[in-house]
Amino acid sequence: MDTNFDEKRDGFQALRFDGEALELLDQRRLPAEESWLRITEVEGVSAAIADLVVRGAPAIGIAAAYGAVIAARQRGNDLDGWQHDMQRLALARPTAVNLVWAVERMRARVARAGRLDPDDLTREAFAIHRADIEANRAMAVAGSERIEPGSGVLTHCNTGSLATGGIGTALGIVMEGVRRGRVAHVYADETRPWLQGSRLTAWELARNGVDFQVIVEGAAAALMATGKVQWVITGADRIAANGDVANKIGTYNLAVLARHHGVKMMVAAPSSTLDPATASGQGIAIEQRDAVEIWRAAGLGAQPAGFAAWNPVFDVTPAALIDCIVTERGAFQPPYDFSRR
Amino acid sequence: MDTNFDEKRDGFQALRFDGEALELLDQRRLPAEESWLRITEVEGVSAAIADLVVRGAPAIGIAAAYGAVIAARQRGNDLDGWQHDMQRLALARPTAVNLVWAVERMRARVARAGRLDPDDLTREAFAIHRADIEANRAMAVAGSERIEPGSGVLTHCNTGSLATGGIGTALGIVMEGVRRGRVAHVYADETRPWLQGSRLTAWELARNGVDFQVIVEGAAAALMATGKVQWVITGADRIAANGDVANKIGTYNLAVLARHHGVKMMVAAPSSTLDPATASGQGIAIEQRDAVEIWRAAGLGAQPAGFAAWNPVFDVTPAALIDCIVTERGAFQPPYDFSRR
Repeated sequence: MDTNFDEKRDGFQALRFDGEALELLDQRRLPAEESWLRITEVEGVSAAIADLVVRGAPAIGIAAAYGAVIAARQRGNDLDGWQHDMQRLALARPTAVNLVWAVERMRARVARAGRLDPDDLTREAFAIHRADIEANRAMAVAGSERIEPGSGVLTHCNTGSLATGGIGTALGIVMEGVRRGRVAHVYADETRPWLQGSRLTAWELARNGVDFQVIVEGAAAALMATGKVQWVITGADRIAANGDVANKIGTYNLAVLARHHGVKMMVAAPSSTLDPATASGQGIAIEQRDAVEIWRAAGLGAQPAGFAAWNPVFDVTPAALIDCIVTERGAFQPPYDFSRR
Repeated sequence: MDTNFDEKRDGFQALRFDGEALELLDQRRLPAEESWLRITEVEGVSAAIADLVVRGAPAIGIAAAYGAVIAARQRGNDLDGWQHDMQRLALARPTAVNLVWAVERMRARVARAGRLDPDDLTREAFAIHRADIEANRAMAVAGSERIEPGSGVLTHCNTGSLATGGIGTALGIVMEGVRRGRVAHVYADETRPWLQGSRLTAWELARNGVDFQVIVEGAAAALMATGKVQWVITGADRIAANGDVANKIGTYNLAVLARHHGVKMMVAAPSSTLDPATASGQGIAIEQRDAVEIWRAAGLGAQPAGFAAWNPVFDVTPAALIDCIVTERGAFQPPYDFSRR
């Protein structure tokens, strides 16, 4: 029983589960240090999600599924206690819908079984992980086929192996596009304040031997004006029924800049990121994080008195600015109707 | 003989000259540390400009003027040597036109005198500094009058006392607008990679008791979508004859985002920033700096092998995206004709 993971085809595995413990590559320490955390209590899984040891909507969902197994081993026959653990896990971060989706899948499995069976839950968690690997492969094919040969691509945040169970969403498409000769130039936003681009995407691209250039977010318009970018490709943390996309802060900037420059915008996410219950982006809660994430870069250990920041982690890109949304079910174009397949 | 500087009215003075030595507040160390460098050789002035001890187009021009005095004291009667020093000073940074403008003014003074007279050159340097203080005051009035009472303003980079001889260009307008009740909310881009916003603008605003919030560049579109911003106000490093503006990387992003959201865009700079000899932004050389400025933030001491970055320091905003350009001669509107006053 495992995830049928093939590193050559599916990238690097940043989360591992052996049935007892969840091992997470600590993404806060990359790229300077590759250190792993071994977690055997569900509180540790919630904390790892909240503290960004593991991040990326699909990876968070998979970690939560393994967290449900760990909670079941801790709780024995205490179903109420386990449900309480699930409630806390689901609230570890508010924006990504995959977290809630994964917890609900684990709950449904328990409901069917009528009891807590850690081995049965392990099978379900592996199934979630395996499905994500397969979804990544399908997206890489469907997305890269939309890219004209020789294109330049700008991506944002990290959406590769570190953010998913497999090769990634947007970054999986970019790397498949490089392999197929469709992507000739890769640019990555450094992605402040957490620097997922310069720390994580750069680390993954270098590890895969892909040439790339990092830019600060402020350079995106100037880069597009050079004509070197044909596609902006990003992931998503939640996609509303109308195609509005919540994703890492800065995504909406890129969508506006892309439209202004005639650059196309692609969003890639597994269908577990679709949220049919939310009609539009206005219904999506946006997580705000501590201002110190911004001040730290200014060489200030803590936030000085009188210094304030506005630090939303996500923004909402209206569907009208997105040319293509790719899931494992294929590439969708506006007007978005995700029920049709 | 001095600059007639009034700290209450004109802000904080980040460069001082006593006729012999140039004292510079080391802006690389702010806000954590307020340390001053005392420079008595022209090579030190060039290095301070190149290394960003002093930055901001008007402040660079003033520093260069004082550098010309220092060079004259070093060179005695060696006019050729002094001209060589001026050549090197003018090349310390390539984009800001004020640097060349100030050096040319000092050369013209020497040409009129027919010899190197340090005291005469000191008078000219003080005149340049004093004119900048007065230009700052005039811009603060002319610019703030354009802002509707109760507006939100987003600014970029640092354009205050640290970037000029006086109260600043764009930030001078913002602070005058706060005093007059026209500006109700101040937002500042942190301005990667050098963080002029979160390090320098935040330091100045806090020092002046102005409430503000810093944002990462990626949050600009999301902020504009909230309706809390009515004006983007920035400085300029060079303004072409047609009104195209070269300014800190990220300015062009803001101009595109502002237009998309119905937010107005104002650019403020002394008329020494106008470059009538350059027809449009296409003729402006854009400085590229070391990629390590980007990698350092990712916790990497030096740039790792295989990691690359595209690090232009400035971008060009087309005049068509700018609603208003303010100089000490008043507020100009499109189509821009700077010769008319």
